[in-house]
Amino acid sequence: MAKPNFTPIVAALPQTVPFVGPEALQRRSGITMRARIGANESGFGPSPAVKAAIAEAAGDVWKYPDPDVFDLRATVAAHVGVTAGEISIGEGIDGLMSVLVRMFISPGEIVVTSAGAYPTFNYHVVGYGGQLRFVPYKDDHEHLEALLDEVRRTNARMVYLANPDNPMGTWWPAEAVNAFIAALPESCLFVLDEAYGETAPAGTLPPLDAGRPNVLRLRTFSKAYGLAGIRCGYAIGDADLIGGFDRVRNHFGVSRLSQLAAGIALEDQAYLDQAVASIHRANDRIAAIAADNGLSAIPTATNFVAVDCGRDGAYALRVLEELGQLGIFVRKPMAPGLDRCIRVSAAPDREMDLFAEALPTALRKAHGAG
Amino acid sequence: MAKPNFTPIVAALPQTVPFVGPEALQRRSGITMRARIGANESGFGPSPAVKAAIAEAAGDVWKYPDPDVFDLRATVAAHVGVTAGEISIGEGIDGLMSVLVRMFISPGEIVVTSAGAYPTFNYHVVGYGGQLRFVPYKDDHEHLEALLDEVRRTNARMVYLANPDNPMGTWWPAEAVNAFIAALPESCLFVLDEAYGETAPAGTLPPLDAGRPNVLRLRTFSKAYGLAGIRCGYAIGDADLIGGFDRVRNHFGVSRLSQLAAGIALEDQAYLDQAVASIHRANDRIAAIAADNGLSAIPTATNFVAVDCGRDGAYALRVLEELGQLGIFVRKPMAPGLDRCIRVSAAPDREMDLFAEALPTALRKAHGAG
Repeated sequence: MAKPNFTPIVAALPQTVPFVGPEALQRRSGITMRARIGANESGFGPSPAVKAAIAEAAGDVWKYPDPDVFDLRATVAAHVGVTAGEISIGEGIDGLMSVLVRMFISPGEIVVTSAGAYPTFNYHVVGYGGQLRFVPYKDDHEHLEALLDEVRRTNARMVYLANPDNPMGTWWPAEAVNAFIAALPESCLFVLDEAYGETAPAGTLPPLDAGRPNVLRLRTFSKAYGLAGIRCGYAIGDADLIGGFDRVRNHFGVSRLSQLAAGIALEDQAYLDQAVASIHRANDRIAAIAADNGLSAIPTATNFVAVDCGRDGAYALRVLEELGQLGIFVRKPMAPGLDRCIRVSAAPDREMDLFAEALPTALRKAHGAG
Repeated sequence: MAKPNFTPIVAALPQTVPFVGPEALQRRSGITMRARIGANESGFGPSPAVKAAIAEAAGDVWKYPDPDVFDLRATVAAHVGVTAGEISIGEGIDGLMSVLVRMFISPGEIVVTSAGAYPTFNYHVVGYGGQLRFVPYKDDHEHLEALLDEVRRTNARMVYLANPDNPMGTWWPAEAVNAFIAALPESCLFVLDEAYGETAPAGTLPPLDAGRPNVLRLRTFSKAYGLAGIRCGYAIGDADLIGGFDRVRNHFGVSRLSQLAAGIALEDQAYLDQAVASIHRANDRIAAIAADNGLSAIPTATNFVAVDCGRDGAYALRVLEELGQLGIFVRKPMAPGLDRCIRVSAAPDREMDLFAEALPTALRKAHGAG
């Protein structure tokens, strides 16, 4: 029997899951993941004030969330030092990316990113019929000059950069990003993903008064704030561009408890400082574990460490798989050049101990199988 | 300074909020809404098991939700009697609507709905460049025959029906809906919104084995389940169509606590039965309050009652505004013919008492101002 047709754009797309979750890995393998250190979640968890507020508000879930996200926008705006009209809240950075690609990219238009950068951004670009152009990393950094050249060469409508970077953990100082912004054609939207901004060294995030309206900056509660489960992120930018979100977004997309939790998390900066210190200690621990096994860790500004396994991508993949067999969930970069690494998330001592215990076995087995 | 351009579709759209929330009304008026009976939320709240589970899982919010929504899909599938591949979960019915319009409607294609039916559906159709065609209600019911005629006349790609209906609360028996499905061209996707299915009389929801793949049915935890705040709904349909959601959806859109809460709510059918009984009693109470004031209530299959104010739309709007002045939040249909009504949500006695107390004053003031 005939079925309604998908649009030509959707008909050409595969079914996919941008990231296979640890739950899916467990279902497939039957192996319980004892250490969940693959998704750059924060096992240090959210502020105790957030947990208490969620528990207390559980009875309020019969009420719709505020579609204006008024209170949280005000809290975020005050925190970053802009007006509420320069903030839009969405279902995580992923949700914001879907909307912003929809706002700016017509089918066939060109979007520039780095080969091996955030796959969900690519998923949304392709999902709206955009044409991706990829630039290789250089020395494990996203290559600013090459990105700029590619934007100019292709007359791209949008360019993506994560600073600090995922999956490598590297970063550019604010001056380099500012120079990139200054050189970028004004007609090209710069999507600056600062998901890992809270863990970066001082001087990494450019000030918000860049004087250029073609920059949208994305931040999230999923990483240092320890709230990946609530699906809440925000975009900061020029009020006209931010206003565009209200033309097409799902106004009721961010749950009531999520709006509440994010606001309370933002107000507990003392806890954030403590969490960031814990993350930095755990990153050092990952680097030490790597060194104990003859591997090197790439310096990081994020809540994870890319560990260079010292051989090719196939070998690093075997290391990842052997870790999985031992119940250690990690992920890895897949792009050529980056794929020699596995990516390990900062976590409390219990998980770090399990990783330290499992890594020698995983390396031995991966080596033996090679 | 030049700014990046929106796409032509987005550039033509206004900034909007499909429903102004009671929070926004309070912010504007300074009047505290004492009775929240305008958004068809369920003040009877969710199952106590849901509240307990949320409180208990508050510490888990550092983990991403499962992007496959595996457990909840399995629970929903078992509950409605289909396979998990015939279920997609989204950020409420609103979120599902955005994705399904995107899946099927290319710019310029025609979508048929009723004048005065769910505005968020229209918002998403227009948001993807679809062309809406409206059919008037007949005797406060969505007009099946006219919808079908309009689909045929315009060669529409999609048609929308809510059964039971919002905002009037009326309904068609399953046989009438089945006849509609049988007569519909197979190339036209039928979006059957069953948000209010749980409160409808037996024999309202057609069986799921309609034998036609061009039907997507939408259900939600926002109404009888008392979980509007979690933003979780589901689509039921042909596996190929449902698979289309995985081509473009935001896989991490539904929060971890929301997936948990929805599953537990579904498993507590005893509580649902009790909530539905409370809703039916409250609906009767609204009808009685209306009658006490010389007004008539339109028979309802939902968790709200459309109260016919007996005069024109301008008068009913004044009644709504006067109720708002008294801290009673209700909404109303706006389409010609339907707009003589206000729409009052079923709620616990406290809210019903406040409504009973306020209505005579509101009517008197609205009458005096007319």
